[in-house]
Amino acid sequence: MPTQTKLTPQMTAAEVNELLKSAYPQLNAEYASYEAIEVFPGGCTVRLNADERHLRPGGTVSGPSLFTLADVGGYVCVLTHAGADALSVTTNLNINFMRKAEAGPILGHCRILKMGKSLMVFDIDIVAGPDQHTVAHATGTYSIPPKRHHPHEVK
Amino acid sequence: MPTQTKLTPQMTAAEVNELLKSAYPQLNAEYASYEAIEVFPGGCTVRLNADERHLRPGGTVSGPSLFTLADVGGYVCVLTHAGADALSVTTNLNINFMRKAEAGPILGHCRILKMGKSLMVFDIDIVAGPDQHTVAHATGTYSIPPKRHHPHEVK
Amino acid sequence: MPTQTKLTPQMTAAEVNELLKSAYPQLNAEYASYEAIEVFPGGCTVRLNADERHLRPGGTVSGPSLFTLADVGGYVCVLTHAGADALSVTTNLNINFMRKAEAGPILGHCRILKMGKSLMVFDIDIVAGPDQHTVAHATGTYSIPPKRHHPHEVK
Amino acid sequence: MPTQTKLTPQMTAAEVNELLKSAYPQLNAEYASYEAIEVFPGGCTVRLNADERHLRPGGTVSGPSLFTLADVGGYVCVLTHAGADALSVTTNLNINFMRKAEAGPILGHCRILKMGKSLMVFDIDIVAGPDQHTVAHATGTYSIPPKRHHPHEVK
Repeated sequence: MPTQTKLTPQMTAAEVNELLKSAYPQLNAEYASYEAIEVFPGGCTVRLNADERHLRPGGTVSGPSLFTLADVGGYVCVLTHAGADALSVTTNLNINFMRKAEAGPILGHCRILKMGKSLMVFDIDIVAGPDQHTVAHATGTYSIPPKRHHPHEVK
Repeated sequence: MPTQTKLTPQMTAAEVNELLKSAYPQLNAEYASYEAIEVFPGGCTVRLNADERHLRPGGTVSGPSLFTLADVGGYVCVLTHAGADALSVTTNLNINFMRKAEAGPILGHCRILKMGKSLMVFDIDIVAGPDQHTVAHATGTYSIPPKRHHPHEVK
Repeated sequence: MPTQTKLTPQMTAAEVNELLKSAYPQLNAEYASYEAIEVFPGGCTVRLNADERHLRPGGTVSGPSLFTLADVGGYVCVLTHAGADALSVTTNLNINFMRKAEAGPILGHCRILKMGKSLMVFDIDIVAGPDQHTVAHATGTYSIPPKRHHPHEVK
Repeated sequence: MPTQTKLTPQMTAAEVNELLKSAYPQLNAEYASYEAIEVFPGGCTVRLNADERHLRPGGTVSGPSLFTLADVGGYVCVLTHAGADALSVTTNLNINFMRKAEAGPILGHCRILKMGKSLMVFDIDIVAGPDQHTVAHATGTYSIPPKRHHPHEVK
């Protein structure tokens, strides 16, 4: 399936991880579990290092944890491809849960489906386990705020 | 808009809150923030007592926190109306984020749209603030496992 | 559940039906089956008069026909509440199908969940039959184009 | 992104096109515009030959037409991979519209994300134009009825 290879990321995975940490000081403990591991033209790969805090009864990774991974994947896409404006917000996210995932690394393969002026649409395949089975799939939209023109803006 | 008043809940809000606590021992710290405040025929009202842990930069309640409230709302619906089978799982959840919510009580008004044998569909209006503005709306599906017939089943 | 009663429609059901006809000349034959029957602050009621063309095998109203009713419901909302700009387009629509509907009148009760500057979010309860059972439910987003300032603009 | 190559289709594109025609006699005129062009392990490719009937004002392919292509894509997946039971029904479909498409061939690349006993989840990339740009993306769920055991069942 097609990826939009004409898009150009403006940040590396390491840079966007730094941004995630500073943008979310109070959630640091939780968000340290979520990180970008690769940024490429038109998408990114993110990872949840799922431990006991992310499990629901039966030892499977909870829905909110997988939702958060999908949301972080979209956020990494918008930060790296639309400029580092931490004020972009999710307007819609649709997620299908398909298989159980156990504690351990959960990968999210994220594609930008549309990068518009005010909206970015993305989808994400969330995979886990030895066979890298699809455990969930999500589609979402981020609203991109109009560019501000502050002279000292970090962008 | 119609609610399915022919449905009959089999548990009170207090009983389902007990169940939420025992079913989620390891998440207790987090899930204490989420509770059922009313159960009625065809739906329920749930509440997130949003504090600093639920905020993202700018002081607004995070998307994952609102997603969790929607998911808990559906879970309370399925537990109270389909029998207390903690093994029901979310198969789909679609959420639209519409306004910012600040720390404080966030209410979720939840309706059962369909209670089938194997699937329950619900929606939830999430409201907050002095005017009880709609801050998010979600629709979701829970998969209901087939009834087990163990003689000592706790249900 | 709350409706946004502060919103004020700028057109009647009869006026918006005229607009639907002129905006969709080539689809007239099909769209004559879809009409607004009421417009009120914060929402509208639309109707599909389902006949043989809208049925799939087994005599039930097809998914695309119900999708179209949901889409028309959102379009009537945006036309009547955001100004008669026929260029508004659907950006997202999520629909759950819950019960079968037979030929005959199908009603869609439509609420505006958010009327923003550039996006409108709505949901719709689609009901049919003697008991007005919910047969489908949809949530959608319309993108509202920036106001144009043509001197002779009909708005 | 991964496709479930372990799945095995039980019908060819030609066979499923025959089935679509006989299963939808009354919709034949319309559904002749929609066809399967390839069936492969874990997915299929479908095509809408968009003409004037599928356009909305401005000459762009309408939302309901793209929704129908997505729905047909899922239907072809379930018919070819779960057995030719025409009674499978869509329970959920979420679609994002991203770019305008003009009259002409519109392709839908469809993947099965999960083939369960009672539910199939799929997604579809809908592309068009000289660059095969993504014009829409959908995710959906089909409910698969329990196998019936009629001796003369065509399956």
